[in-house]
Amino acid sequence: MVSTYLFLDNEVRKLTIKELQQHLQDPKGKLWVDLEDPTEAEDETLLVSLFDFHPLAIEDCENGKEEEGHLPKVEDFQDYLFVIFNPVEMPPQPEPRHQSHRLDIKTTQLSAFLSRQMLVTHHYRPLRSIAYAAQLLVKNPMTLGKGPDFLFHIIIDDIVDNYTPILDALDDSIDALEDEVFRQPGQRTMARILQMKKNIMTIRRIAVYQREMLNRLSRGEFTLITQEEMIYYRNVYDHLVRMTDLAESYRDMVSGLLDAYLSVTSNNLNQVMKVLTIISTIFLPLGVITGFFGMNFKYLPGAEWEYGVLATIIFMLGVGGGMLWIFRRNKWL
Amino acid sequence: MVSTYLFLDNEVRKLTIKELQQHLQDPKGKLWVDLEDPTEAEDETLLVSLFDFHPLAIEDCENGKEEEGHLPKVEDFQDYLFVIFNPVEMPPQPEPRHQSHRLDIKTTQLSAFLSRQMLVTHHYRPLRSIAYAAQLLVKNPMTLGKGPDFLFHIIIDDIVDNYTPILDALDDSIDALEDEVFRQPGQRTMARILQMKKNIMTIRRIAVYQREMLNRLSRGEFTLITQEEMIYYRNVYDHLVRMTDLAESYRDMVSGLLDAYLSVTSNNLNQVMKVLTIISTIFLPLGVITGFFGMNFKYLPGAEWEYGVLATIIFMLGVGGGMLWIFRRNKWL
Amino acid sequence: MVSTYLFLDNEVRKLTIKELQQHLQDPKGKLWVDLEDPTEAEDETLLVSLFDFHPLAIEDCENGKEEEGHLPKVEDFQDYLFVIFNPVEMPPQPEPRHQSHRLDIKTTQLSAFLSRQMLVTHHYRPLRSIAYAAQLLVKNPMTLGKGPDFLFHIIIDDIVDNYTPILDALDDSIDALEDEVFRQPGQRTMARILQMKKNIMTIRRIAVYQREMLNRLSRGEFTLITQEEMIYYRNVYDHLVRMTDLAESYRDMVSGLLDAYLSVTSNNLNQVMKVLTIISTIFLPLGVITGFFGMNFKYLPGAEWEYGVLATIIFMLGVGGGMLWIFRRNKWL
Amino acid sequence: MVSTYLFLDNEVRKLTIKELQQHLQDPKGKLWVDLEDPTEAEDETLLVSLFDFHPLAIEDCENGKEEEGHLPKVEDFQDYLFVIFNPVEMPPQPEPRHQSHRLDIKTTQLSAFLSRQMLVTHHYRPLRSIAYAAQLLVKNPMTLGKGPDFLFHIIIDDIVDNYTPILDALDDSIDALEDEVFRQPGQRTMARILQMKKNIMTIRRIAVYQREMLNRLSRGEFTLITQEEMIYYRNVYDHLVRMTDLAESYRDMVSGLLDAYLSVTSNNLNQVMKVLTIISTIFLPLGVITGFFGMNFKYLPGAEWEYGVLATIIFMLGVGGGMLWIFRRNKWL
Amino acid sequence: MVSTYLFLDNEVRKLTIKELQQHLQDPKGKLWVDLEDPTEAEDETLLVSLFDFHPLAIEDCENGKEEEGHLPKVEDFQDYLFVIFNPVEMPPQPEPRHQSHRLDIKTTQLSAFLSRQMLVTHHYRPLRSIAYAAQLLVKNPMTLGKGPDFLFHIIIDDIVDNYTPILDALDDSIDALEDEVFRQPGQRTMARILQMKKNIMTIRRIAVYQREMLNRLSRGEFTLITQEEMIYYRNVYDHLVRMTDLAESYRDMVSGLLDAYLSVTSNNLNQVMKVLTIISTIFLPLGVITGFFGMNFKYLPGAEWEYGVLATIIFMLGVGGGMLWIFRRNKWL
Repeated sequence: MVSTYLFLDNEVRKLTIKELQQHLQDPKGKLWVDLEDPTEAEDETLLVSLFDFHPLAIEDCENGKEEEGHLPKVEDFQDYLFVIFNPVEMPPQPEPRHQSHRLDIKTTQLSAFLSRQMLVTHHYRPLRSIAYAAQLLVKNPMTLGKGPDFLFHIIIDDIVDNYTPILDALDDSIDALEDEVFRQPGQRTMARILQMKKNIMTIRRIAVYQREMLNRLSRGEFTLITQEEMIYYRNVYDHLVRMTDLAESYRDMVSGLLDAYLSVTSNNLNQVMKVLTIISTIFLPLGVITGFFGMNFKYLPGAEWEYGVLATIIFMLGVGGGMLWIFRRNKWL
Repeated sequence: MVSTYLFLDNEVRKLTIKELQQHLQDPKGKLWVDLEDPTEAEDETLLVSLFDFHPLAIEDCENGKEEEGHLPKVEDFQDYLFVIFNPVEMPPQPEPRHQSHRLDIKTTQLSAFLSRQMLVTHHYRPLRSIAYAAQLLVKNPMTLGKGPDFLFHIIIDDIVDNYTPILDALDDSIDALEDEVFRQPGQRTMARILQMKKNIMTIRRIAVYQREMLNRLSRGEFTLITQEEMIYYRNVYDHLVRMTDLAESYRDMVSGLLDAYLSVTSNNLNQVMKVLTIISTIFLPLGVITGFFGMNFKYLPGAEWEYGVLATIIFMLGVGGGMLWIFRRNKWL
Repeated sequence: MVSTYLFLDNEVRKLTIKELQQHLQDPKGKLWVDLEDPTEAEDETLLVSLFDFHPLAIEDCENGKEEEGHLPKVEDFQDYLFVIFNPVEMPPQPEPRHQSHRLDIKTTQLSAFLSRQMLVTHHYRPLRSIAYAAQLLVKNPMTLGKGPDFLFHIIIDDIVDNYTPILDALDDSIDALEDEVFRQPGQRTMARILQMKKNIMTIRRIAVYQREMLNRLSRGEFTLITQEEMIYYRNVYDHLVRMTDLAESYRDMVSGLLDAYLSVTSNNLNQVMKVLTIISTIFLPLGVITGFFGMNFKYLPGAEWEYGVLATIIFMLGVGGGMLWIFRRNKWL
Repeated sequence: MVSTYLFLDNEVRKLTIKELQQHLQDPKGKLWVDLEDPTEAEDETLLVSLFDFHPLAIEDCENGKEEEGHLPKVEDFQDYLFVIFNPVEMPPQPEPRHQSHRLDIKTTQLSAFLSRQMLVTHHYRPLRSIAYAAQLLVKNPMTLGKGPDFLFHIIIDDIVDNYTPILDALDDSIDALEDEVFRQPGQRTMARILQMKKNIMTIRRIAVYQREMLNRLSRGEFTLITQEEMIYYRNVYDHLVRMTDLAESYRDMVSGLLDAYLSVTSNNLNQVMKVLTIISTIFLPLGVITGFFGMNFKYLPGAEWEYGVLATIIFMLGVGGGMLWIFRRNKWL
Repeated sequence: MVSTYLFLDNEVRKLTIKELQQHLQDPKGKLWVDLEDPTEAEDETLLVSLFDFHPLAIEDCENGKEEEGHLPKVEDFQDYLFVIFNPVEMPPQPEPRHQSHRLDIKTTQLSAFLSRQMLVTHHYRPLRSIAYAAQLLVKNPMTLGKGPDFLFHIIIDDIVDNYTPILDALDDSIDALEDEVFRQPGQRTMARILQMKKNIMTIRRIAVYQREMLNRLSRGEFTLITQEEMIYYRNVYDHLVRMTDLAESYRDMVSGLLDAYLSVTSNNLNQVMKVLTIISTIFLPLGVITGFFGMNFKYLPGAEWEYGVLATIIFMLGVGGGMLWIFRRNKWL
């Protein structure tokens, strides 16, 4: 599906592909062409024939069909910049309780060609940030009027803003996991910690790659980005620095959880061993005492005594109680 | 709440907002405007209308309402520098004994606009360092007279000085934790170690970001900072280097504590197992001896012997004592 | 075996070594000389006498006979570039189930001399990517016609593409290993994890070295690579970045598996200990009870009672059941 | 205490403070002023009034009163360099056998002002290296005659040389600790390993900071250091590189010790468990055998047999011996 | 022992020290002076008086008497380069089976002064690479004729080649250690792993320092190395890169062994615990059964029954067999 927006004479109107072809023979104003889940024919018509983009860049665009998409990058083709960004989507259920160890955070690919007069965006899945920019365009034509680089900044700023709920969900999950580790660690806790770590590393990697990319965009390395726009890209860069920072502190927290889990497991083992030791320490001696008076000697002392059993019981209680007292003194109970 | 200080003709006087507006039409002298917990109207009037700061910088200012605030940064807007600093506050109780694993060290945000003639500070929570600078101003008008960059250095130097008691409190807590680990490690020790580690990482991160920022301020990267002032900023930089260094050595110490904790736990397990083994090794053989003489054979040797029981008791004492002797020789007791 | 291809007048034809010698006296067109498993005589004739390459480069070529070959590198000899690349081959069986801890992923060496008019490739084992380039040459003479650097890019791009199935196989193996760790960890699981880690580190090292090499090739450091070609080399560079990234996330996953394995082992120990403790806690007290009534006291209470045995049985069931109830309440069962 | 040395006309003589004041009105020759544990008045008279050093540098000097002193640094004040160095002192007893976990290696602070004609050193504790330089000066006036930077190099070279016995002591301590870990690890071994690690990290940190500082001094960054002197500073730099290298290999060794300690502890647990298992495996079956013949059945087989007890004893010895034979075959004994 | 070689008029001849002194008054041709285990007098005569090298460089030379020698470095004294290299020697027995934890790989020191006309080598222990160069010189005078830098490259190339058998020995040792860890880990395995790690770290450190040094030599940083020679030094650099790479992969393998060792130990503990648990779980219930029928109740059910014992035996076999069946089902046996 191709949507084309032309800003001319302070208003924005949509063009059909035919109108676009005519317009390009004598280009005026500013143009945004969005290709959502384009057919190969559309790619051929627009990217190859009309815009004449570099074949390698188009190949990278089409790589977006695959599951995780291409890593973020920016490439300078003199007349235009080719940029790949990775929006992130998270499945509805925020906390992975099932035993899958696959990644739950899915990245998709947004490819963009940015020239002085035109922004071409290309993606296979519908993206909230693109829809948001289209709405904004209707309300305020100057969003495109300020130039394609301003419009592009709006889109990637929104993509980065959309990472926030994911980070919040991760934060909540880490809290829940912490509770689980310290209160009732189970068989699957370890798998969940590893899964959490993978999610955090995914988020971190995306943030780092895009941060480096925005650092380049905001430092004046590319002449297509105007001086004024650079400060807006710097702003997006700041958000990504914050995100990397958060992801790194989450990673530290999850490493801590792993240590904590092993220590809790080990403490539980200690508890179990203490119970075993206490039981053995009390009942093994008692067993020897009863065994003693079960011996078939003719002259067993006290066997004939009327209060022999009573004395034995008292003695056994004394031994058991003494053991318990020792344990209590040693703070084992 | 807006406080405005004007240095003119070797004295400092406070201005109302009206006076400030008049003054700005023909600016002379040096100005410090402090916005503490400003209303949106005040932000609008001062930052937007009067001073005409960049919208993105103002947005970053207003981010200070949120819990942790923006990460430290410095940005050059040609006419002015925009700086974010993170003062740290610690709750009254220095040692976290409760089972909360959340951070106890709270960072807040101080935003500042620094131009040749004016310093604008902007924060939502009352800050000791701002109050300190205001007092100093009353005593010594030259604090502002030497220029807004000198005044600003006074403020951030005080902020950094205020980190010291927190580091000292951390040091004490690590000592206390060390005692706990080696003397009476408990269920919550692990949680406390992790909590400590988080606090140290927070402190370290703040120190590192601000150190990098001050490195830039003190190296002549920004023309608004005078040559003479740079050496003062270098001094603040030195304090932050020291702080990072301390935070890193604390981190090493806490990692050591974690290892120590696991080793102490493991040693305790060894102790428990030794007790169990000693008890079993003594009483299982004794049980077999008593069981032996409890057998219902007609011709049980010694059953009819007058001193059979005595001999058995002596034999049992011998076995038990022998075991104890072996343990003592192997240094298990 | 030496294969020589000459592109002249828009067509490609094969030359014998004699024709090559004649041709080199008055070189025109573009040349590709491929030496597959060359004899020392062939090396001598071609590399030394005809092309007069640097002795050290030739020595590096001949290093390719050894098992793992030389590490990737690129060296500028002014008239030509000398490049070493490491194609990877994996043995048929993708998953190492046997107890060998040796590397399964084998690297071989492809050496290449690249000048303006000529590409010389040199390798000891037959390579898929060389065969692929030769086929392409037959179909489309321009593959060589666009210059030796274009042809060389085709070859190394195919080499890098051939890494993909290996990475996929690694991915599958990690999944299988994960199942093994969480479901039925055995004696050899640890050995398999270590083996996996080695394979991943091998892949990663190759990717990193070649990535750095392609970074240099695609950044204009060498004047022999044309501006236009650089973007193609940049494309290969991108693939290697992706590969390094994958290898690093695999490494993280395998580290996670190691942690998981230790934790699963430790959990199993806990389970075993719990069983032991439960059994001991139930049967040691019961043993004392039966021992009690086995004592040979004259006045043993209840010994003469008709329902004594029944009462004892009920008491023993009560004790055993009570223990089980306690365990169930403490979630040990 | 202030000591002032003036090199003039090929001889060195000591000046009183008065003479120093007169001399400074028309300075000739080369000057070394050493302030050992100066009073505030002396600091005021000399550093502030006479030499007019920067207030921040003087503040840093006075920081030397505190326990650990300021981190090493060098600062260029155009007319003079301000340098802080950290001599190290170690307490008499080289090996910490007591349970203190505090650092034993104490750093002190030597501050120095270095100009073309003058070296001012400032420290609170008496320093061997200063005393050594003063002695050298008496023997050979040219020590100062070659310039204050030569004299300063003598002092810091001696400081660095004084690190060597500390490193040797650390090396011995690591050896002793290694013996302890492998032969008789105890409760306090872990604490000692951690303590050792802290000492090594302290040494390493000091070495790294001073190495970086000397790197700057020896690279021609400061115009006050002559070309000829740079090579001497380079020599001190080399010593510090060696020291960092040693400290890092010590750190690796101590990490190894930590792993070894945990593994030894774990092996000991295995030993204890084996003893328990062997005892249980032998005596539990024997207990069942004696219990069997203790049953009160009327028709107990063999109860009436003359050699029943003998047979039982032989059977029990057989069971016990068989168990021992199995253990020996499995290499548990 | 001093050996002096002079290349003049296409031939090499040996000079006595006297001839050398005469020759140096009017130097022609190319000179190699090798000092093997020189006396202090020889050092004085040659290095100080004749060649007038810098005192600090001579001091570094004499540092070679000490056990490990100086770290590799290169220093530019304008007229000559001063280079320190660390040849490695390994003791005859390649695999350390005894309990020593000291380093087995010994480094020695080769110091060299390299000027346009002269190479001076200085070492205390006889070196294979020096002997090799001397032999080569006899066969082919041009080895020195191509310049002292060519001869020096021959020497260091041979030194680096001599590292290879050490790396191979390490590789074999790691394999042997791997077998030991997985087949029969013992008390000393841990010590051997640590020892191996130290050896690898030593090799790695040497390789890294010398690699960095050769990087500088081969990059044209020093004007004394001719353009043509640089490519030979680059070749030595490549070997050191390979060596560092190998050392790093060995380090990873040894870390893996450490993990494996801990996991094998832990698995063994699990095995021991399983045996204990199985024995207890079978014999504790049997003990209660025999105890039950050993009770002295008057009306013990079945006591008078003719087949009571048989039934009890069958019941006991049933209980024991049932337990075994449960263990087998849970895959514990």
